[in-house]
Amino acid sequence: MTERNGPISRLIDEITREHATFLNFFGKYDERGATAIADFVAGNPQEMPIPGFAETLIKWTKPTSKDHFAYKQSIPEARRAVQASLAKLRGLKVDLDDIFMTGGAFQALSVTLRALAETGDEVIYLSPPWFFYRGMIRMSGATPVRVPVDAAQGWDIPVDKVDAAITARTRAIIVNSPCNPTGRMYPRENLDRLGDVLRKASKRVGHPIFLISDEAYSRIMFDGVHYESPVDSYAYSIVVYTYGKQLLTPGERVGYVALPPSIPIAEREALRNAYAMTQVLMGWLWPNTILQYAVAELEGMSIDIAHLQQKRDRVVKGMRDAGYRLNVPDGTFYVLVDSPWADADAFIEHLASQRVLVLPGATFEMPKHFRLSITASDAMIDAALPVFAAAIKEPARV
Amino acid sequence: MTERNGPISRLIDEITREHATFLNFFGKYDERGATAIADFVAGNPQEMPIPGFAETLIKWTKPTSKDHFAYKQSIPEARRAVQASLAKLRGLKVDLDDIFMTGGAFQALSVTLRALAETGDEVIYLSPPWFFYRGMIRMSGATPVRVPVDAAQGWDIPVDKVDAAITARTRAIIVNSPCNPTGRMYPRENLDRLGDVLRKASKRVGHPIFLISDEAYSRIMFDGVHYESPVDSYAYSIVVYTYGKQLLTPGERVGYVALPPSIPIAEREALRNAYAMTQVLMGWLWPNTILQYAVAELEGMSIDIAHLQQKRDRVVKGMRDAGYRLNVPDGTFYVLVDSPWADADAFIEHLASQRVLVLPGATFEMPKHFRLSITASDAMIDAALPVFAAAIKEPARV
Repeated sequence: MTERNGPISRLIDEITREHATFLNFFGKYDERGATAIADFVAGNPQEMPIPGFAETLIKWTKPTSKDHFAYKQSIPEARRAVQASLAKLRGLKVDLDDIFMTGGAFQALSVTLRALAETGDEVIYLSPPWFFYRGMIRMSGATPVRVPVDAAQGWDIPVDKVDAAITARTRAIIVNSPCNPTGRMYPRENLDRLGDVLRKASKRVGHPIFLISDEAYSRIMFDGVHYESPVDSYAYSIVVYTYGKQLLTPGERVGYVALPPSIPIAEREALRNAYAMTQVLMGWLWPNTILQYAVAELEGMSIDIAHLQQKRDRVVKGMRDAGYRLNVPDGTFYVLVDSPWADADAFIEHLASQRVLVLPGATFEMPKHFRLSITASDAMIDAALPVFAAAIKEPARV
Repeated sequence: MTERNGPISRLIDEITREHATFLNFFGKYDERGATAIADFVAGNPQEMPIPGFAETLIKWTKPTSKDHFAYKQSIPEARRAVQASLAKLRGLKVDLDDIFMTGGAFQALSVTLRALAETGDEVIYLSPPWFFYRGMIRMSGATPVRVPVDAAQGWDIPVDKVDAAITARTRAIIVNSPCNPTGRMYPRENLDRLGDVLRKASKRVGHPIFLISDEAYSRIMFDGVHYESPVDSYAYSIVVYTYGKQLLTPGERVGYVALPPSIPIAEREALRNAYAMTQVLMGWLWPNTILQYAVAELEGMSIDIAHLQQKRDRVVKGMRDAGYRLNVPDGTFYVLVDSPWADADAFIEHLASQRVLVLPGATFEMPKHFRLSITASDAMIDAALPVFAAAIKEPARV
């Protein structure tokens, strides 16, 4: 064990060091964001909130009883709304007791990892990953096991590599479809092969390996594509969802965990108790009451996906016309772009000097790339495309 | 290590078993609460929310910019409100960077314990404790060390016993003043003696032992008593606060951690990074944006403390007149009562059969007692006092 750095837990200290790139970048971001002409950094709103969102919260802020703002775990009204949504959109029949409301997918993930994993366990994640999978896995005590996805395979899940990464210690794999940052929705055939591998491996190692299905972007799909959930290819899957993407309100956090009926009832019952205890002890990780009451109405609201798709198409065409290599996302807010300079950070800094902000790939294990969030406004895209076009003509710097 | 119980982490499973009494009790509570004539169980509202609370939230639900519902860590407006409050009420001059907004004291505690402690460490708590100190300490990886408080010492901190419990592994002690469930506010002289012991022990073990000061009830004080914070007796203290008690809105959670300037700057800087990372990785444990914007106004709002004191006085007098032994709280929502029957659970069940609900002391390491929350309404107190008077005359049962 390393020497302790002052008062801080060594684990927290180590994880903080692992996130140095991320923390350094975001340390400069607030100041830069204020004067940017285009901000493509985060999946953050760059326009006013969608109509109806604030009105719905206001409606549910008016107290209806003495219990309106009392302690609440997962309230029946919210669970019923989620149950109806999963039945309608997915044909999934989930028990009310198997729906756990959380403060967004962030809490759904952190609670799930703690409930399932502990010191000595391993949890597999696909790379490039969302920024915090590794750190969250480590917070559970488990060891993160990285399996890189290959662009040459169309960013699909490298099922054989997953198989090879599984050991007797493997407790779970996190699958994020459509994927932040690649935008890839894994096709059914790919998911079915993963399911086969996980079934056989679970038998081999003697315990079920859970598939944690991070479906945050499952309603941010383009080209009318039907969302294919990993859950339909493998029984031991856990749905993680947030309303923060469809509403684009990451500062008002509500989401859920759902255990599909394909998980045997004995295991679901054990998980119900484990989730309740974990949600309590991690700090009462239920959404606030107003958001829970509002879920049934928020469920039907969304940002304008057609408009988002137009922005994707403009960004993709504009960047390609300028000479960039990139991939076209099936879903999510993100376009992943190859850096034209070998030193991607230098290129990203050059863009920042022109007040165009993008996210460095170094924050998601892809140091030769950068990511654009098309939550940027049309005006930002207008302002940025000429900057991108000019930048790629500049001689590469280091 | 024990055998694994299905899919659940052994730690979560063990902690869940430790909380069996609590979980069993609350498993029956919802149904019983609905038909109770008096509900003294939890620090939950039994009357409509205070005027102004919903109106303030509604005001701050109306978006003021595109960033209104964007990702937010601790926003400057909330930090400034906390800074001003600590300066005014305590004469504490806390740096803005040393204030971390959280979803109530629950998250403030869970984040603090994870930032400071890890496997191999020990954290001391005083017994009777708040229900979740033990479990939260275990979730950090550390071992909870119990130091019992003695009614014969007026429920003060048994400073010599704390000293004897400190080892080279001790990283922190949790102090909750005024204390849930004893209602005791530790007097300055008691806190000064604790500070002396912690200073000497820190020198002896070679690292600072932090005092985590859970001040959730610091504004729920009776008889005009000035609140004495442990922070003023010991440099390495961390303030934990929630607005959930003064507003009696535990379903809309906002609170904070504050690092006083008595902690040396090098350690505060290390803690700032550690808190940010820990708040992210435990699931983005910042309060929602609306609550953060509202803090400056919520800060000045409170339930009617004079009315609460009247209820305390009625309950204390009524119970004493009926023959109960109890202690009079200096603050908090709670009156701690000795069970007149040796089998307290049987007595509590007898009360429940009369539709009067109280909290079993077994949930807080005092199996011969029960706790009354005076958040109960006047009507509930009216209905309950004759039931208590009759119950104590019944022959003891097992």
